[in-house]
Amino acid sequence: MIIVLKPECTKEQLQSFKDQLTSDYGVKVNIWEGVHSTVLGLIGDTTAIDIDYIKAQDIVDEVRRVQEPYKKANRKFHPENTVIELSNGLKIGDGSLTIMAGPCSVESSEQICEIARDVKASGAQILRGGAFKPRTSPYAFQGLKAEGLDLLKEARKETGLPIVTEIMRVSHIDMFENVDIIQVGARNMQNFELLKELGKTKKPILLKRGLSSTIEELLMSAEYIMAGGNDNVILCERGIRTFETYTRNTLDLSAVPVLKSLSHLPVVVDPSHGTGKSSLVESMSMAAVAAGADGLIIEVHNNPKKALSDGAQSLTPKQFDHVAKSVFGLKNYLNSQANK
Amino acid sequence: MIIVLKPECTKEQLQSFKDQLTSDYGVKVNIWEGVHSTVLGLIGDTTAIDIDYIKAQDIVDEVRRVQEPYKKANRKFHPENTVIELSNGLKIGDGSLTIMAGPCSVESSEQICEIARDVKASGAQILRGGAFKPRTSPYAFQGLKAEGLDLLKEARKETGLPIVTEIMRVSHIDMFENVDIIQVGARNMQNFELLKELGKTKKPILLKRGLSSTIEELLMSAEYIMAGGNDNVILCERGIRTFETYTRNTLDLSAVPVLKSLSHLPVVVDPSHGTGKSSLVESMSMAAVAAGADGLIIEVHNNPKKALSDGAQSLTPKQFDHVAKSVFGLKNYLNSQANK
Amino acid sequence: MIIVLKPECTKEQLQSFKDQLTSDYGVKVNIWEGVHSTVLGLIGDTTAIDIDYIKAQDIVDEVRRVQEPYKKANRKFHPENTVIELSNGLKIGDGSLTIMAGPCSVESSEQICEIARDVKASGAQILRGGAFKPRTSPYAFQGLKAEGLDLLKEARKETGLPIVTEIMRVSHIDMFENVDIIQVGARNMQNFELLKELGKTKKPILLKRGLSSTIEELLMSAEYIMAGGNDNVILCERGIRTFETYTRNTLDLSAVPVLKSLSHLPVVVDPSHGTGKSSLVESMSMAAVAAGADGLIIEVHNNPKKALSDGAQSLTPKQFDHVAKSVFGLKNYLNSQANK
Amino acid sequence: MIIVLKPECTKEQLQSFKDQLTSDYGVKVNIWEGVHSTVLGLIGDTTAIDIDYIKAQDIVDEVRRVQEPYKKANRKFHPENTVIELSNGLKIGDGSLTIMAGPCSVESSEQICEIARDVKASGAQILRGGAFKPRTSPYAFQGLKAEGLDLLKEARKETGLPIVTEIMRVSHIDMFENVDIIQVGARNMQNFELLKELGKTKKPILLKRGLSSTIEELLMSAEYIMAGGNDNVILCERGIRTFETYTRNTLDLSAVPVLKSLSHLPVVVDPSHGTGKSSLVESMSMAAVAAGADGLIIEVHNNPKKALSDGAQSLTPKQFDHVAKSVFGLKNYLNSQANK
Repeated sequence: MIIVLKPECTKEQLQSFKDQLTSDYGVKVNIWEGVHSTVLGLIGDTTAIDIDYIKAQDIVDEVRRVQEPYKKANRKFHPENTVIELSNGLKIGDGSLTIMAGPCSVESSEQICEIARDVKASGAQILRGGAFKPRTSPYAFQGLKAEGLDLLKEARKETGLPIVTEIMRVSHIDMFENVDIIQVGARNMQNFELLKELGKTKKPILLKRGLSSTIEELLMSAEYIMAGGNDNVILCERGIRTFETYTRNTLDLSAVPVLKSLSHLPVVVDPSHGTGKSSLVESMSMAAVAAGADGLIIEVHNNPKKALSDGAQSLTPKQFDHVAKSVFGLKNYLNSQANK
Repeated sequence: MIIVLKPECTKEQLQSFKDQLTSDYGVKVNIWEGVHSTVLGLIGDTTAIDIDYIKAQDIVDEVRRVQEPYKKANRKFHPENTVIELSNGLKIGDGSLTIMAGPCSVESSEQICEIARDVKASGAQILRGGAFKPRTSPYAFQGLKAEGLDLLKEARKETGLPIVTEIMRVSHIDMFENVDIIQVGARNMQNFELLKELGKTKKPILLKRGLSSTIEELLMSAEYIMAGGNDNVILCERGIRTFETYTRNTLDLSAVPVLKSLSHLPVVVDPSHGTGKSSLVESMSMAAVAAGADGLIIEVHNNPKKALSDGAQSLTPKQFDHVAKSVFGLKNYLNSQANK
Repeated sequence: MIIVLKPECTKEQLQSFKDQLTSDYGVKVNIWEGVHSTVLGLIGDTTAIDIDYIKAQDIVDEVRRVQEPYKKANRKFHPENTVIELSNGLKIGDGSLTIMAGPCSVESSEQICEIARDVKASGAQILRGGAFKPRTSPYAFQGLKAEGLDLLKEARKETGLPIVTEIMRVSHIDMFENVDIIQVGARNMQNFELLKELGKTKKPILLKRGLSSTIEELLMSAEYIMAGGNDNVILCERGIRTFETYTRNTLDLSAVPVLKSLSHLPVVVDPSHGTGKSSLVESMSMAAVAAGADGLIIEVHNNPKKALSDGAQSLTPKQFDHVAKSVFGLKNYLNSQANK
Repeated sequence: MIIVLKPECTKEQLQSFKDQLTSDYGVKVNIWEGVHSTVLGLIGDTTAIDIDYIKAQDIVDEVRRVQEPYKKANRKFHPENTVIELSNGLKIGDGSLTIMAGPCSVESSEQICEIARDVKASGAQILRGGAFKPRTSPYAFQGLKAEGLDLLKEARKETGLPIVTEIMRVSHIDMFENVDIIQVGARNMQNFELLKELGKTKKPILLKRGLSSTIEELLMSAEYIMAGGNDNVILCERGIRTFETYTRNTLDLSAVPVLKSLSHLPVVVDPSHGTGKSSLVESMSMAAVAAGADGLIIEVHNNPKKALSDGAQSLTPKQFDHVAKSVFGLKNYLNSQANK
């Protein structure tokens, strides 16, 4: 951590501040005196230093971290890729491409089972589906809730596909015991109480980037889960909010190589929410794979026109089949090139 | 609601879609046929219609709401200002200026009681202070939690100031029973499970705008609370996230007159989080009052340099005293002009 | 165009407004009366109608275009892809992949000729290089100007590569007579005077998206050039400005398929400016090609450490060679799949 | 300037880099060696150092300026407020409130003279009006051009009000010889060629902030003009582009106190473009004055419904009269408080 002091800082203030930093945080402080300003360099573990505390000092002009504020999610301290293994042996982040597919909302036994069979036939390895739905309007369909979870498990039983579904509340964690991957949605990425509790489980967590969250904040939220003892975190880029209104969100695909370089965690991309338009899902899926994503999470509905939520961005099973073939083909091509 | 159909829509598809809208939603459908496209106009209560469902239809090109999707928070259906009255008789939104002041975090009995006395002496009517703190880093100070709540109540007992403090978890609602105003922070503005549960209480709720939430989304979150039966919602503009990095956030003061025109709920402004810099708090407080805000929520710390969180944006009691005098003076001036 | 009137609009106002629209714009006006509001539908060419004029009417609540406001750039009126052919026969937008490569700034004869030879050897078909440089600071290197143009032509002569370089001023158009493609930079995307003058030439124009320009605005700027009579426009996505600071800009790759669907013009992607980091250029180049881009424009410098501008995002010739091999390989793979 | 080197940097590389910095830029280089990384501190005038050049070095991890990159616009080197005096003796930035008012576009002699008389009667000191109009669409009204300038001068002759109007092209500078204040619009804020040429004049320049320009970039554009020798720059906040769509732009009022603290130049606010809605102009004008603005620039049209551009955000003369009374009253109140 580098601290630039204001020009008016006196020698006494400087000494006193240095002593305080040393005693409060156990860091070593180097002083470099320039013409216009003095700069302090802090050596040691600065992760726990509250940058706001430093900024609030009268004599401080600016503070800059050199170290990233996350440790467990940091590739520097964990160079190998994290590979997450589900109970059926499926691995995420091992160099293969994982596709999670299914409807935005679980609606009925017929619907979820039919979609599950379809997406499995197309090569999807995981079934997604919302039981508890975060909706902007209190008057919109909120999901089938516990019944939705049961229907997902039914579809899993029938097809063997592991399931991923979103949690919205700490008190539901027990109910999600038998879910294979628990999803934390974009709106809950900084629901720190939920993250802390999920950190106490051993469940794989699919952590979606918040609509206006920086890459560093996403990693800090992963760090919350990991600090609690759960290392099974999958990061998900799903579009950020910008001034552009043609697409629902702006899919930030550069986040994929950035996250892969800063962290060892697997990264998946959600082109459905990322664009909000089914017509863009294929091209953005291809781009995500080419950018190095470990997986995709795609909305598929047997009858998007009748979908109770997010129909506009859902693919039909037939469309999904085409996308799946394309992306698996691309992944094979890319892997064959890498192995040359 | 206006629905623009694609040019290729056939007469049969049109008729079938019209029949479905009528039967599913009980709305009347008017058809207007243009040269390039056909437009449907839906008459009746369209609040419950899922706009995504409509968009997903093959034959639909675009959908546009004419009605706002919120009802209880809508000034059209509730023309008079909502005035919120606390148990000590204090009114918020009645044309006076309400100031909530106090530290970001409650740190000790001495700290909170001293600040409470100070801000009361300067004219603040409500004491703010964080007991449960949402922090980006799991390694940062997370607040004194239940003990913090007790200290706030102690300060209330000593000064008579009602207290406002942030809730982060549904299971804590009981613990907040004796809090005068429960704050929902920016990061939880779309924690819908929390909003629903708060809707079942009668507590005044201070609802902060999310970092990337539109004005409409803020009103939809208020609608969540109100749909549950709790009309005591205070809206809070606290800065949005933009590309500008000089300030921590960009305070959107135009949201004040916009919210006042769209809704009947009181609107307060947080210039401390909105700017992240104590040097900007006075000018932005003045601007907020001039823009028509019903109140301000300002961070004050007896020793910002030692604050355990957000010190950079906290005022000293002396600085706050100056700000309070200025904004109350301005409010009196503005009220005197309005009464001319 | 659809116009929603305010509930208080009288029959007389309605009739008078309708008459005015008919006489001023020659459009037919359909009226649809709802319970709460009346909606007008305008039929005919509404491109020339100023939406602000309509919004300013007392009786108007909201206006919504159904037609896009651009005609010449619109795929609806020009379904086939535009293919741009340079004087050496090179085609852009014909299904092949075009790579423009070279230094941010032209610095010397040796530098530009060496880079030109290198990028040509790697497969680039066009040489890029800045002679006039838009720099945020007046104290930064502003380019070699006219001398830079001469050096580019020298490199063209030596290698046969057509050249693309940026124009910053109307009075320079004559000087750019012998340039193969004239680039309009992001900061000049809405320099309408420059666009108008470029519309009077027949030169291919590489039009870069502004840092905060919507996709529609980019197409409207293309329309400015085309309205003047110059149809040779190449669109370029080069990153937009968002809250994320890890990358210099956020590369909006979804703009590629969106632009390809809305317009018939070729679309190229600039991963160098789009990310600002040389380490991200390869993955974003691959993603751009997978998303359907017709070309790439990539910064290459023989000595990025000594580059007089934008060194951080430049590749070495060796790095570029690797990227070029990868993207041409990917394009071949994708084309072979498409032809199956 | 502070440069953080990568951990793998060798002693030889460090020494060579240090020598190079010293010889190339004449700065002194201090070295501070930490455990994980080495930090260089550069002493001297670092304004001319290209930060991109430094970033491009293999051994550099991060670079951070301590000094601002602008000098002439910097309050540190010019502590007193700049006061701009027009030929009629009117002063801008002297502690009084300057109001520029008039139509978006000049449309006719009657229109501009009538509005000029009206706004003068209400207290406006400067007449604004567009002769050359930057319009997103090539098919929209582009202004009366030279004729518009003549009409503005006619209105000035009749009322004595100095005029401010927008320039869009270097070759027009001569034509603007008799204009009192030349406006550089938001879309041309980084039209550096135009800025350079305006720097060679002595004309007061009203420089509007670009839609996605940071505060620092606005000051750098002012620096362009000032570096050329023209110190008469007035800064204008006119709203930035964010995700919020209810207002046309998001007026960033915190930019007012920030610009006043970083620079000595006068700051005016444009609430008309800043919000895009006439109903928000009064409250945002009041807020701007309370935030410390030196002036306002407000759109007024005698018949907003017939305005050829931007009617939705124009006030009628009667509405403007009310706003002017309110803001002058507020300014008097604030000045009286300051003098206590």
